[in-house]
Amino acid sequence: MDVDAYMAERRPMIEAGIEACFRPAPGVPDRPAELEGAMRHLLFPGGKRLRPLFAVAAAEAVAGAAEAALPIAVAVELVHTYSLIHDDLPCMDDDTMRRGRPTVHVAYDEATAVLAGDALLTEAFAVLTASSTGRAAEAVIGVVHRLATAAGASGLVGGQADDLRFAAESGGSDRDADRARLASIHARKTAALFQAAIVGGAALAGGKPVELDALDRFARDVGIAFQIADDLLDADREEAASILRIQGIEDARRGSEALIDRALVELAGFCERAEPLRELARHAVRRSR
Amino acid sequence: MDVDAYMAERRPMIEAGIEACFRPAPGVPDRPAELEGAMRHLLFPGGKRLRPLFAVAAAEAVAGAAEAALPIAVAVELVHTYSLIHDDLPCMDDDTMRRGRPTVHVAYDEATAVLAGDALLTEAFAVLTASSTGRAAEAVIGVVHRLATAAGASGLVGGQADDLRFAAESGGSDRDADRARLASIHARKTAALFQAAIVGGAALAGGKPVELDALDRFARDVGIAFQIADDLLDADREEAASILRIQGIEDARRGSEALIDRALVELAGFCERAEPLRELARHAVRRSR
Repeated sequence: MDVDAYMAERRPMIEAGIEACFRPAPGVPDRPAELEGAMRHLLFPGGKRLRPLFAVAAAEAVAGAAEAALPIAVAVELVHTYSLIHDDLPCMDDDTMRRGRPTVHVAYDEATAVLAGDALLTEAFAVLTASSTGRAAEAVIGVVHRLATAAGASGLVGGQADDLRFAAESGGSDRDADRARLASIHARKTAALFQAAIVGGAALAGGKPVELDALDRFARDVGIAFQIADDLLDADREEAASILRIQGIEDARRGSEALIDRALVELAGFCERAEPLRELARHAVRRSR
Repeated sequence: MDVDAYMAERRPMIEAGIEACFRPAPGVPDRPAELEGAMRHLLFPGGKRLRPLFAVAAAEAVAGAAEAALPIAVAVELVHTYSLIHDDLPCMDDDTMRRGRPTVHVAYDEATAVLAGDALLTEAFAVLTASSTGRAAEAVIGVVHRLATAAGASGLVGGQADDLRFAAESGGSDRDADRARLASIHARKTAALFQAAIVGGAALAGGKPVELDALDRFARDVGIAFQIADDLLDADREEAASILRIQGIEDARRGSEALIDRALVELAGFCERAEPLRELARHAVRRSR
């Protein structure tokens, strides 16, 4: 199957879902215009929407409708975008450019960037609970809880805290310990959100517990493999330098491919409708971001 | 009834609920220790737990169990605490002390303060969805959505954005316009979270739609009245200066009391079990924080 065609076909639904977050809601006060501009700055045109595509493909993999996954597809993209905005702040990675444009705190100011990130994170939970029509309420609650756990202090936020500390210490003398720490950072910073997207998409589409468990293991491996491939692409970035110093380029590339192979074994029991999900996993390590 | 005795009696349950957020959960990775320390810094011993107490009293006002409101009681305190941590940041209000102790970015560092706030906000949604046993799943989804809307760009975050801009412009020449803007900031920054706490507490305790509507109007007035009273207390703060400049102290005090009177009318149809909620409203404007 042609994964590029699949992605092109599913993206308009995802774009429309993200745009819908900015439609005025009845009875809800308007957002301050500058804040809304800052929320939109990195969100549009945005990146490849890889996490939302994984959510949608996971819904299809359990023989559900792509549309069923839309709330979690949009929510993970909002959470991903908030995390980039906060990571770019002067007190964190201090990045001034992202995707060829000024970062949010450069285009606006630091306070507005903090608030725009806060607002996107919060909006993710509003999107997930905006309407439970056609979806089991218990499944929605489970998906909210998964996303909050993945995004919180044990997941995404914890990973960024570990990452800052790791960078400040600039690696120890114990290679194995460094490698284990880096794997833990990847699991928290990247894999957790992949897991929330993929398991959440399948759960909203009516996936069975045994399917969700297999998808959770699949998603974790894919997320870590994606992060390694991403670091290899941006070989001039500091994080990349650290992984290359520890692992070496060839070693890292082989590790990433081995993770995808292991991930695909988890989908052995899934039907042909899981083909886009399988192809997305292969795609994620071929070319990242 | 003795509102101080009521508060003293209900607080241990609330404290235990907040503390329970930091218990290790099976299958969830540990939080980085420094991040967890920063999350706890302002949360313990914390303030008067006024918002959680309102949530609990609202559950009782609809003839429900106080315990039913605990998830939203804890969640609003986490959201309130996160908003204080981010508001204190150098790029926002740049406060170095709060409740007699160094603010989080002073006690730790700026990056850790941003992340601790992010983590507390996220944890609020995890707490709300940790278990839906004994509560209707639809009610939980509604409460998550209310909290996300109250905390987001139309509510709390939007209010802070407006507040920063208002402070930067340091008031216009049009008194009526300034007064309307300030009322809108109070509604977003303070009342929205009071509404989420009170309506959420009643909803989790099985309150009927007509009761929730009355409580929503009650909570909005109480929240705005509380904010005015709070500004009057801290008369040397800049925000206080702005409201006093616009309204005058006596005018502001009368306005705050009139709001409480109007709020209490909304509870006219409620039974005697709403008495703690009525007394908390009176208490909130007598002495704030």
